[in-house]
Amino acid sequence: MILDDLAAIVGAGHVLGREQIETRAIDFWSSDATRALGLVRPASTAEVSAILALCHARGQVVIPEGGRTNLVRGTEAEPDHILLSLERMSRIGEIAADSGWVEVEAGAVLQRLQDHAAGQELRVGLDLGARGSATIGGLLAMNAGGVQVMRYGSARAQVLGLEVVLADGTVLEHLTPYAKDNTGYDLKQLFIGSEGTLGIITRAVLRLHPQPISVQTAFLAFEEFGPIPKLLGTLSRGLAGTLSSFEVIWRDFYDLNTEEGRLRAPVRRGLPYYVLCEAEGFEPEADAARFERLIVEAMEAGAVDAAIAQSVAQRDAFWRIREDFEAEMALFSEMGDFDVSLALEDMESFGRDLARAVDEQLPGHSGLHVFGHMGDGNLHVAIGLPSKDKKPIAERIVYDLVAARRGAISAEHGIGLSKRDWLGRSRSQAEIAAMAAIKSVLDPQNILNPGKIFRAAGSAPV
Amino acid sequence: MILDDLAAIVGAGHVLGREQIETRAIDFWSSDATRALGLVRPASTAEVSAILALCHARGQVVIPEGGRTNLVRGTEAEPDHILLSLERMSRIGEIAADSGWVEVEAGAVLQRLQDHAAGQELRVGLDLGARGSATIGGLLAMNAGGVQVMRYGSARAQVLGLEVVLADGTVLEHLTPYAKDNTGYDLKQLFIGSEGTLGIITRAVLRLHPQPISVQTAFLAFEEFGPIPKLLGTLSRGLAGTLSSFEVIWRDFYDLNTEEGRLRAPVRRGLPYYVLCEAEGFEPEADAARFERLIVEAMEAGAVDAAIAQSVAQRDAFWRIREDFEAEMALFSEMGDFDVSLALEDMESFGRDLARAVDEQLPGHSGLHVFGHMGDGNLHVAIGLPSKDKKPIAERIVYDLVAARRGAISAEHGIGLSKRDWLGRSRSQAEIAAMAAIKSVLDPQNILNPGKIFRAAGSAPV
Repeated sequence: MILDDLAAIVGAGHVLGREQIETRAIDFWSSDATRALGLVRPASTAEVSAILALCHARGQVVIPEGGRTNLVRGTEAEPDHILLSLERMSRIGEIAADSGWVEVEAGAVLQRLQDHAAGQELRVGLDLGARGSATIGGLLAMNAGGVQVMRYGSARAQVLGLEVVLADGTVLEHLTPYAKDNTGYDLKQLFIGSEGTLGIITRAVLRLHPQPISVQTAFLAFEEFGPIPKLLGTLSRGLAGTLSSFEVIWRDFYDLNTEEGRLRAPVRRGLPYYVLCEAEGFEPEADAARFERLIVEAMEAGAVDAAIAQSVAQRDAFWRIREDFEAEMALFSEMGDFDVSLALEDMESFGRDLARAVDEQLPGHSGLHVFGHMGDGNLHVAIGLPSKDKKPIAERIVYDLVAARRGAISAEHGIGLSKRDWLGRSRSQAEIAAMAAIKSVLDPQNILNPGKIFRAAGSAPV
Repeated sequence: MILDDLAAIVGAGHVLGREQIETRAIDFWSSDATRALGLVRPASTAEVSAILALCHARGQVVIPEGGRTNLVRGTEAEPDHILLSLERMSRIGEIAADSGWVEVEAGAVLQRLQDHAAGQELRVGLDLGARGSATIGGLLAMNAGGVQVMRYGSARAQVLGLEVVLADGTVLEHLTPYAKDNTGYDLKQLFIGSEGTLGIITRAVLRLHPQPISVQTAFLAFEEFGPIPKLLGTLSRGLAGTLSSFEVIWRDFYDLNTEEGRLRAPVRRGLPYYVLCEAEGFEPEADAARFERLIVEAMEAGAVDAAIAQSVAQRDAFWRIREDFEAEMALFSEMGDFDVSLALEDMESFGRDLARAVDEQLPGHSGLHVFGHMGDGNLHVAIGLPSKDKKPIAERIVYDLVAARRGAISAEHGIGLSKRDWLGRSRSQAEIAAMAAIKSVLDPQNILNPGKIFRAAGSAPV
């Protein structure tokens, strides 16, 4: 019995059986019971290696999990699968403060690392709502995005070195703390964003960035889309690398969240487009003067209303308008939600065509909300469905409009099981075949999170 | 005859035979004649695809070349190889100025793209001495570094989208202009830095950055190494993302270039360490004031001498001390030169141990120069060899000291043929086997630049 053999590797207390895990929900988003043969919790890279060598030899499927906050059913298992959790591998190494890096085990929770770094006036270049649960291993496996991508890049850009265990137990250790390394193929890139299908990330060396000490935040309103990309260009230049957020919000979501009795509207309601932007710097007075000057220029260049936050409380209030989904959840009893990338040049027409298609093809819908990290080319779309069974129609509408603009059907959430059948809207058959070929050579038994992202060539449907 | 079949694809005028290419030097660094069966110059991705499909079917080796400025014998061919040049594919697309990107064909020369971007007050995040010859395809295939890595990252970080032709002619087209894309494996990462061994890069979408309008440059001298990483930390924070260079120079190179009759010494000679640092911003007056304040702080924190360039001419003079190799070339009749990465924390001991080992193991040497892009963890080492046959001793000295510190035997130049036999100093056998496995699945006939980086498993020695 494989659970006994796993117990021989990690100790009996660290293998949970079917009964012990079926009381857990699958993930943060689903209350369905976890189905799996068992869950194993190694304490070291050597134990991960031994577990995978065993499972590889037996053809035993392994589903890795981190904080189970992913949005794409990325850790869903079948009843005969083994779950692998690295929660016991959560050590955070000593911080190299001047050169800005830290070595960390994959099971460490992001917020703990953030707190650790803050103690040295440093910042992890990665932040998102799930920070209190999401683990470093999961965040790297998903190439997580979040609210700091514009400034620091995605999770991928934070990684200096990586240790990965391959499906057969082979350990690829390359825990290097420097930015430049042209010693052959940059193997770590392959595992970052591969959603646990190519190897198990066990440790990483991450960059740390100086923690800014000043913050400026503005809300702007626009009658037309045209000036918005121009404003982004102006702020990118004018703020000299300190621009950290540039969010765009279409009317309906802004108006909903600023209705009477909800949040206070910082700028006029009822306009087609809103921008929430923020800069973080190191010289409070000079930063504030520069920011104010640029916002005044933005008014001259086409914004019809603007407000700069005058306090931390006001800044928080600005962000709540973007991040509060209570009113949306009350309005949309059934929702289709999407996370796409587009060229900035295509966003306006996408929003317009999307509104028309939703009206035409989803009669009785309860609304359409579009907003997102425009500075990263990333829009989030939420559609209030007339009924749950209309979700495939919403998917087709969004993904067809994205495909027609060479957009990405996932900007930051990943593919998992949820978007697998739509992957062809963003990637060609040749690309998917190349992915499958790489998977087949690194995981010939197809034991690592099989069926996520794409169906493995020649495998039974999962 | 394969040349005739290639001519049928690209036209007879675009296939050069053995006699037409043997008058060319192999590359910029070697005056040896190019040996190869021929050279083919396609005009489109479709032609590249047809060429590779043909060569794949015939088992014909193809050696891709760009501007032939690489430093690692990366485009060296055997007499029965075909050279592939993309010089006819050099179109530069329209610049998206506000969102900051451009689509470019792989044969475009970097400097042309830089000039093109400058016309829109934008900058390619990539610059190096070979800018007038190096092509975008070659720069991406080598993941080139250069003098702007600290600010913008390596070549890899400039790439938003990529088109690659695989060994069998399959085209992987993913020319996307946005930063966030989690639609399955990020295949482009595999080809960037793979030195032409996994596929032929035909087109790319590159980021463009706002062109700074102010520049501040300082030279500092130190009695000890300790304050230097601290200064880097201070400047990273204090300059808020505008720090663009942080170069460290060990005494002997500084003293040589500032000898009587050579360049003027901006700070005292004869000290163990020098730093040349530069910031580029968008607010000339405020930037200059801030920079000056930080350099004054640096003096208080351990620098024993410092100078800030007061004019463009003085700035150029500062940089010549770092970039002028005439005196070195006159002094070192035979040279071993190296390009390594190390953690900042290991650089001081590396320099010390290296000096001792060179004195002990290379008696009669003519000197040791250490300097480099410290902000990137990248040091360049030049050793004046007593005789040419001592190069392997120099290599062993440097690479053993690098390996003992988990350093990279190549920070930015790559591996090619020159460093292939030392790859094991930086990468484990498991890592090299993983590279070979990936190569074997993407290029099963081993026709693309075989033998570069590592010897292909099961192939005849090249």
